[in-house]
Amino acid sequence: MQGVHLLSTIVVLALASFIASATDPGPLQDFCVAVNDTKTGLFVNGKFCKNPDDVVAEDFFTSGLNMPGDTSGRVGSNVTTVNVDRIAGLNTLGITLVRIDFAPYGENPPHTHPRATEILVVAEGTLEVGFFNRGHENAVAFAALSSQNPGVITIANAVFGSDPRINSDVLTKAFQVDKNVIDYLQKQFWETN
Amino acid sequence: MQGVHLLSTIVVLALASFIASATDPGPLQDFCVAVNDTKTGLFVNGKFCKNPDDVVAEDFFTSGLNMPGDTSGRVGSNVTTVNVDRIAGLNTLGITLVRIDFAPYGENPPHTHPRATEILVVAEGTLEVGFFNRGHENAVAFAALSSQNPGVITIANAVFGSDPRINSDVLTKAFQVDKNVIDYLQKQFWETN
Amino acid sequence: MQGVHLLSTIVVLALASFIASATDPGPLQDFCVAVNDTKTGLFVNGKFCKNPDDVVAEDFFTSGLNMPGDTSGRVGSNVTTVNVDRIAGLNTLGITLVRIDFAPYGENPPHTHPRATEILVVAEGTLEVGFFNRGHENAVAFAALSSQNPGVITIANAVFGSDPRINSDVLTKAFQVDKNVIDYLQKQFWETN
Amino acid sequence: MQGVHLLSTIVVLALASFIASATDPGPLQDFCVAVNDTKTGLFVNGKFCKNPDDVVAEDFFTSGLNMPGDTSGRVGSNVTTVNVDRIAGLNTLGITLVRIDFAPYGENPPHTHPRATEILVVAEGTLEVGFFNRGHENAVAFAALSSQNPGVITIANAVFGSDPRINSDVLTKAFQVDKNVIDYLQKQFWETN
Amino acid sequence: MQGVHLLSTIVVLALASFIASATDPGPLQDFCVAVNDTKTGLFVNGKFCKNPDDVVAEDFFTSGLNMPGDTSGRVGSNVTTVNVDRIAGLNTLGITLVRIDFAPYGENPPHTHPRATEILVVAEGTLEVGFFNRGHENAVAFAALSSQNPGVITIANAVFGSDPRINSDVLTKAFQVDKNVIDYLQKQFWETN
Amino acid sequence: MQGVHLLSTIVVLALASFIASATDPGPLQDFCVAVNDTKTGLFVNGKFCKNPDDVVAEDFFTSGLNMPGDTSGRVGSNVTTVNVDRIAGLNTLGITLVRIDFAPYGENPPHTHPRATEILVVAEGTLEVGFFNRGHENAVAFAALSSQNPGVITIANAVFGSDPRINSDVLTKAFQVDKNVIDYLQKQFWETN
Repeated sequence: MQGVHLLSTIVVLALASFIASATDPGPLQDFCVAVNDTKTGLFVNGKFCKNPDDVVAEDFFTSGLNMPGDTSGRVGSNVTTVNVDRIAGLNTLGITLVRIDFAPYGENPPHTHPRATEILVVAEGTLEVGFFNRGHENAVAFAALSSQNPGVITIANAVFGSDPRINSDVLTKAFQVDKNVIDYLQKQFWETN
Repeated sequence: MQGVHLLSTIVVLALASFIASATDPGPLQDFCVAVNDTKTGLFVNGKFCKNPDDVVAEDFFTSGLNMPGDTSGRVGSNVTTVNVDRIAGLNTLGITLVRIDFAPYGENPPHTHPRATEILVVAEGTLEVGFFNRGHENAVAFAALSSQNPGVITIANAVFGSDPRINSDVLTKAFQVDKNVIDYLQKQFWETN
Repeated sequence: MQGVHLLSTIVVLALASFIASATDPGPLQDFCVAVNDTKTGLFVNGKFCKNPDDVVAEDFFTSGLNMPGDTSGRVGSNVTTVNVDRIAGLNTLGITLVRIDFAPYGENPPHTHPRATEILVVAEGTLEVGFFNRGHENAVAFAALSSQNPGVITIANAVFGSDPRINSDVLTKAFQVDKNVIDYLQKQFWETN
Repeated sequence: MQGVHLLSTIVVLALASFIASATDPGPLQDFCVAVNDTKTGLFVNGKFCKNPDDVVAEDFFTSGLNMPGDTSGRVGSNVTTVNVDRIAGLNTLGITLVRIDFAPYGENPPHTHPRATEILVVAEGTLEVGFFNRGHENAVAFAALSSQNPGVITIANAVFGSDPRINSDVLTKAFQVDKNVIDYLQKQFWETN
Repeated sequence: MQGVHLLSTIVVLALASFIASATDPGPLQDFCVAVNDTKTGLFVNGKFCKNPDDVVAEDFFTSGLNMPGDTSGRVGSNVTTVNVDRIAGLNTLGITLVRIDFAPYGENPPHTHPRATEILVVAEGTLEVGFFNRGHENAVAFAALSSQNPGVITIANAVFGSDPRINSDVLTKAFQVDKNVIDYLQKQFWETN
Repeated sequence: MQGVHLLSTIVVLALASFIASATDPGPLQDFCVAVNDTKTGLFVNGKFCKNPDDVVAEDFFTSGLNMPGDTSGRVGSNVTTVNVDRIAGLNTLGITLVRIDFAPYGENPPHTHPRATEILVVAEGTLEVGFFNRGHENAVAFAALSSQNPGVITIANAVFGSDPRINSDVLTKAFQVDKNVIDYLQKQFWETN
């Protein structure tokens, strides 16, 4: 039961200034287990539902959240997302859960969820403002978001790593710097994403 | 880091047949940190907000979720709720997080949340259908609910332990049993709640 | 016009402690008359719509609510539901209407609507708390619910009559009684539903 | 029980071409019984709530719907509305119920509810399209609307009877008629409303 | 740059007494570009989405709003609507934009949008209450509505020009006038629409 | 009428990758004209309402949108916002309108609206992707957003100009660059905002 004692004391909403505040609309039936839209070639707002007669308990279940994510990348963190794409039964139910692993000094870079608010509990270790592991040990957090598909825009990637590129004149003016700096920033993401 | 390895493999939506499916409406501003309505003597749908100029980071934070809840009661479980009453910053943001502790053979009795759907991750131990710890060790789960104030109706208490009592004729007919059985059931909750 | 004079004086919200509070999201067009999903083999949140060019007045109409429901069953009541399954034009419009007949001493057993609030008017006779006919005559009520498909969970059936059964250990602990009582309760619903 | 047999066969959505389609947002707590805003001099979206500790069963109840409304006016119908202003407990719960009485040849003139859809059951007599009693007897209908406060705009009154008047040049052009006709129409409402 | 200087000073909500107040529910993904439902023969609440992999920038763009609409008709105004039918990318995004041209003395006749509120800016000329051009020059306004498909009910047409006709007895009673006047009014729309 | 002919051909949704998608919940009454919360010292979700008896036409009106905004600042653009803070009558009605002026080569820097989608019409000149005036003349656009209070997060300011500063270690890791670059970027906003 050591895990319990290691639980950190922090429950924190992810940095408010980057958060969109939205909720999914309520569902129109008890459940609408998502089916794969690539099979039908048709797409709707959200997802198509499985025939209710074929729904099974497994549609509301997933395993594997005990496995740490790979934090060897440049930012030293890893997000395992359990949204409607992983638990089909979440379709129309307005909630998502994620596991976030942080290597020492790892961070979950500034981002926004365009369709959700987020609440985060630190299960292992200590995090600064919910994002940045300043400790010598790994950290683990769970977060929930108020949408079946909260989306994510990681600021640095969206601004400097988009494909196609945002015109560097636009970014030079927006960030008030030499165009060289923008070129340098764009180059980081060009090479590595 | 043993805690990480102890994380169970189960993520499961709480028993679907008892779940109401609803989401909070979206907010009308970035944040609306709740203030204590007993001070003003006025009440609104949701909560009044703090003056935005007085909002501080602590309004979005709580500690103590590393402390196990007391599971010595009759059902052998304990729910620690982090909703708008504990983190005032959750007001209007449509999400709640709970820690649930289960003693061996403890259970979280059948209940419904009238204003939310729920997603649950088992952080320690193993649970049957998200509710019932059949193992020899304690278990810990975190759950998120898609409302700032999901509410909870524990079926057994609401039916047999309400104050005032539901007329026993009504319950006798509803449960299709001898009135003695209803009297016996009502007596359990009368004495202990 | 005797019917008018027989109208009882009671308008009451169904017992608040068992009610979920939710509303359907607003529609995205004037109407979206439901079509039978079994024809297409596809299912969506709510229902598919008829081609708007083929919509007729009858899509918004049903008859037969003047016929009393059969109240000869064990609980002595009968619910006739006019939701999206009976009036296809209700799809996306967020409302349902029901007729409830009560034999003398009949009741509508404790239940919850997971996606709606309910308002009820007693048209004939007298009801106790909207549920229980204690008079010597039949009673008739109409109720409206704020969803095209409010759902219903009748507590006793959901707890003791579900298929598959809820583990009797779970119920024994939840209801704080001898396992014999749970077995007895489960048996009532096993035999009769 | 004659009243039951008199129940007409019609359940119909009020004339679709005049209906707005909207639903109230979901509530943020179990109930929020409305209090009189004139006491506080403050007004909010919807209504302020009573202190939850002071809520009583009567907050969810009204009587008197067995009384026919006065249909002696010019249109020969009368609407008795049970919305949040009459049952304070309806606040935030998204539903309203009305009783509509029709004298022979009475009608409920064309109107729209800007914040609700409506479903209507004819309890006595026969109505044409839910609006117009062409029979020799009185008629009674109950209707439910998907808002605590659906609002109502009676077309004729809003166009020709508004105070201040809509400029008659505007109406002359809108209705494509001689200004004399507009003056005549406006005069009907000026004198009688 | 004269156009800029001609911009009128009026921003006004369209005449409140005729406006329905509603908003679309939030979307469940970043975008859901509408596809033509006549191809699939299937219809849903709102619109089907294009395969996200095939979405292009043009799905969020339209041109031609610099072209004045034809104001030579009887009411002297013209509405160019940019809703989901013209910009497929608007599907699920809850907003519409229109250009309204007014000839001198032209008007946009009284109407209601059953699923939206409206905000209007006068870009050229001067309008009375947002509807009626009393100047000697053309006027141009832009308006936005809080729905991807706000709908529109032009009162005069809906009441006197519907097909099939509303029974003239109903209108005679509703408008409190001689049946001749109703016949005259209905005749205007019969001949010209 | 030259202004009309100068109207550009572009209607475009603001750059989708930076847009949050949300809509306000529907209102619970016809209008709820905002009053100044600093007078009462109380704050609610959205705004308090004026006494309905005191509402006047001016509550739904503002003037001055014919005045170009000052585009002499570093980014060469200016946003004039007409939201609930400028037209009190917009409270609860879910819509906002803005005028955006662009000097030649001016831009509206990358930003997100956390509670709204946006539609934009170019009234004068030509804009690249709705943001960037590459012409030799001024440009004017109007945009509408699906919220009474859409909020705005200008990326560059939020990331590099927040007060207090985001820890430069966090940004160094997030943007994958030398800490010197982050220091340089933060310095631009430190000095000028």
